[in-house]
Amino acid sequence: MPADIVRQLDPIFKAKSVAFIGASKTPGKWGYRAIERAINSGYRGRIYPINPSGGEILGIKTYAGIMDVPRDVDLAVFTLPAEHMPGVMRSCMQKGIKGGVVITADFAETGEHGRQLQDEIVRIARQGGMRFIGPNGMGIWTSAVWLNFALEPAPTPGPLAFVSQSGTFGGSLAHIASLKGYGLSKFVSIGNQADLTIPDLMEYLAEDPDTKVIVLYVEGVKDGRRFLEVARRVARRKPILIYKGGSSPEGARATLSHTASIAGSNAVFDAMCKQAGIIQAREIEQMFIMAEALLSQPLPRGNRIAVIGSGGQGVVTVDALSKLGMRVPALDDDARHRIKEVLPPHAPVPGNPVDFAGGARTALQEARVAEQLALLDYIDGIVTNVPTTFSLARTVGAAARVGIEGAELLASIPEKYGKPVLTQRFRGHDDNLIFHILRGAGVPYYTTPEESALAMWALVRYGQIRANFDDSTGVLDD
Amino acid sequence: MPADIVRQLDPIFKAKSVAFIGASKTPGKWGYRAIERAINSGYRGRIYPINPSGGEILGIKTYAGIMDVPRDVDLAVFTLPAEHMPGVMRSCMQKGIKGGVVITADFAETGEHGRQLQDEIVRIARQGGMRFIGPNGMGIWTSAVWLNFALEPAPTPGPLAFVSQSGTFGGSLAHIASLKGYGLSKFVSIGNQADLTIPDLMEYLAEDPDTKVIVLYVEGVKDGRRFLEVARRVARRKPILIYKGGSSPEGARATLSHTASIAGSNAVFDAMCKQAGIIQAREIEQMFIMAEALLSQPLPRGNRIAVIGSGGQGVVTVDALSKLGMRVPALDDDARHRIKEVLPPHAPVPGNPVDFAGGARTALQEARVAEQLALLDYIDGIVTNVPTTFSLARTVGAAARVGIEGAELLASIPEKYGKPVLTQRFRGHDDNLIFHILRGAGVPYYTTPEESALAMWALVRYGQIRANFDDSTGVLDD
Repeated sequence: MPADIVRQLDPIFKAKSVAFIGASKTPGKWGYRAIERAINSGYRGRIYPINPSGGEILGIKTYAGIMDVPRDVDLAVFTLPAEHMPGVMRSCMQKGIKGGVVITADFAETGEHGRQLQDEIVRIARQGGMRFIGPNGMGIWTSAVWLNFALEPAPTPGPLAFVSQSGTFGGSLAHIASLKGYGLSKFVSIGNQADLTIPDLMEYLAEDPDTKVIVLYVEGVKDGRRFLEVARRVARRKPILIYKGGSSPEGARATLSHTASIAGSNAVFDAMCKQAGIIQAREIEQMFIMAEALLSQPLPRGNRIAVIGSGGQGVVTVDALSKLGMRVPALDDDARHRIKEVLPPHAPVPGNPVDFAGGARTALQEARVAEQLALLDYIDGIVTNVPTTFSLARTVGAAARVGIEGAELLASIPEKYGKPVLTQRFRGHDDNLIFHILRGAGVPYYTTPEESALAMWALVRYGQIRANFDDSTGVLDD
Repeated sequence: MPADIVRQLDPIFKAKSVAFIGASKTPGKWGYRAIERAINSGYRGRIYPINPSGGEILGIKTYAGIMDVPRDVDLAVFTLPAEHMPGVMRSCMQKGIKGGVVITADFAETGEHGRQLQDEIVRIARQGGMRFIGPNGMGIWTSAVWLNFALEPAPTPGPLAFVSQSGTFGGSLAHIASLKGYGLSKFVSIGNQADLTIPDLMEYLAEDPDTKVIVLYVEGVKDGRRFLEVARRVARRKPILIYKGGSSPEGARATLSHTASIAGSNAVFDAMCKQAGIIQAREIEQMFIMAEALLSQPLPRGNRIAVIGSGGQGVVTVDALSKLGMRVPALDDDARHRIKEVLPPHAPVPGNPVDFAGGARTALQEARVAEQLALLDYIDGIVTNVPTTFSLARTVGAAARVGIEGAELLASIPEKYGKPVLTQRFRGHDDNLIFHILRGAGVPYYTTPEESALAMWALVRYGQIRANFDDSTGVLDD
């Protein structure tokens, strides 16, 4: 089954050649933009624009019909009007094309006539052995061959796969992922899921060596049983994060006209996610906050967290962790003594949170404290407020140097002790500097206590999910 | 009573002259930094550094003792060690100084000896008629005289007052406020509240013409009855937003060592806020998200919101509003018809959310739709996703022009129709452009649907609070 899905979807995600059917010479039209984006993303295969009037599009020879293309074609991307789809789809079958992405809209989402047309193209594809994404999607990005015709700008390649039932919206989120400094292995705007569905994609992504974490924006699940069965299998291997759109009655009304999805009951959906070992986000951006930690950090063995943070920052961080069910254990006297030695002289004897009492401290001191905390067998993970010494513009050279040393020490802790380290600091004028120093070292960096607490929660939760699967059955034991 | 508090606190917040007692010649020390910051913030009064060795600090003549200062002094800022405080405080009484800010720590937060010392300086101040902030605070900023010795960099002047029981943390938050483009009228790091307490500050800020919205970070309330009584009175006039640190048991443990606060029961605190008409934030940054809308937008008469947003953006925005108890009513046929005329030709007949179906649209079209929505008597407020046409770099000139027109039309709606308009767009590469266009026009701009939903909720909530006060008693009728 997994081998099968890989064989079926590789023509899409590892396409050596793409035909753009419905290619256009008019800038701004989908049939033009798709090709433009494929070129700009540095696609490594061959591009065949298909347009009855032939000639050239963006300097590429254009064929009147798909049968005129002299070589094999792996993937067909459709942007022509819906009523032309069945005929063109048949030609593609003749040509032996095994992968499709149907961007064309006006199918099931518009009513009965559209549904019939959609059923027809599914029939044609099934007979000819083509698998396709869509219709009514915005396309895909796949880092395997640097092919993008969905997003502007093209994403950075990276270990996150994002499958979205909303195209425009998915694009914004993909863009956020790139901005946050981790890239995407895949972006799939799944559209109406006439042929390929989210479970198919999950199955493929489980096998995809480029993908470490799977993120889903879903408005409705078509085949709950299969979704559950596949998710359960995949979640044992890779974290699956999900946000469900239409979780309010009024939001559900909106999904109906958007992607013809029936949002279904939240309670049922929540239960399904829990049973499958899927991690649910309550706000859309939370998926990316959690993904960031899951991409780089080891899974904690428990929920006992140490916090480094002075004054209100420490207090609020503990609050945020505590609200999500984590514990912030008091430190033993030995540990407090050892940590005191690293602190500035006038700092109080540390507790948890470790409070620097507003005293000057360096990123390196902070990292040394973090290492002391990582040594404790009753601490499973660390959240640390990045010190202000990073931020003093007048000492930026020296601070950056100490910052880099500190960041490197921080970054070494997860591997050395098998415990996650997350950093945080409120948005500020020096965000970029801190971000680059920490990100350069591979340390996740958040801008509110609630974000880092949520990220830590996701690590703890996925640790539980992995631990609770009974290996013989693949069933989550919760 | 209000006249009294104004008279008592004006020497602090409108100080025409400040003595820095414990002034230092050593860069980096508190006694040096405080003066440096006052100079850098553009303080409009006279500065008198006080240090036994005299000479000059930062080019300013330094006096050996406070009695040597030849002119009147409104405000004394104390940074010298705790044990010297009683003696120096007595000299200040002799000098007739009416305002104080005690930055010095090692008072009640450190134990019994500190508490006695603290009681002593309170006694001295009371006898001499001085009111003071602190001890163990980080200082203040007041836009009335451009005096800052708390924050780096100094805030932008603006209509938000922020009183914080955490200094360093408060500083970060004040900085966020400036970054978000609205400034601060006051920042007060309240410290141990030995003399002036949060209710005193609320009372003063209610009278302060520079302050429109009051934001509080609180770890514990000393005199619940007075807090409630004052808050109830002030909340009728200006919105009060609060975040309580130490709301988890483990967070509460941390507040004890931080500001000697006993966090108390959350249930009691929640009930008190509700009764007083204070708006509580569940995450720290939420205070600023809500404040932004309260600073510029009219209060809605009800909770019926219209959304402009395509596909998933619309769906998720409706979800977020709905989760916070707002309604997103269906539109009547007349309204749908009128809005359809403004939409691009191929857009579907609009519902609520109004969906542009991923079609090209301009900021101006969107603003015209918003105006149509504002006309409906069953719509109390509008949340609109900023269109992607803002973001196409290749058309930035034209888009910015249409964007400015659109932003201006959007900005005119609140005043014309008395209904709030909030905009949102996911964080992206074009944030700055959009931000500046919208902010330039005075339109609040958020980066997630959850943020704008929360901001709208705050407007609805404060509208209810204002409406529910029974004018004869000043008691909130809920």
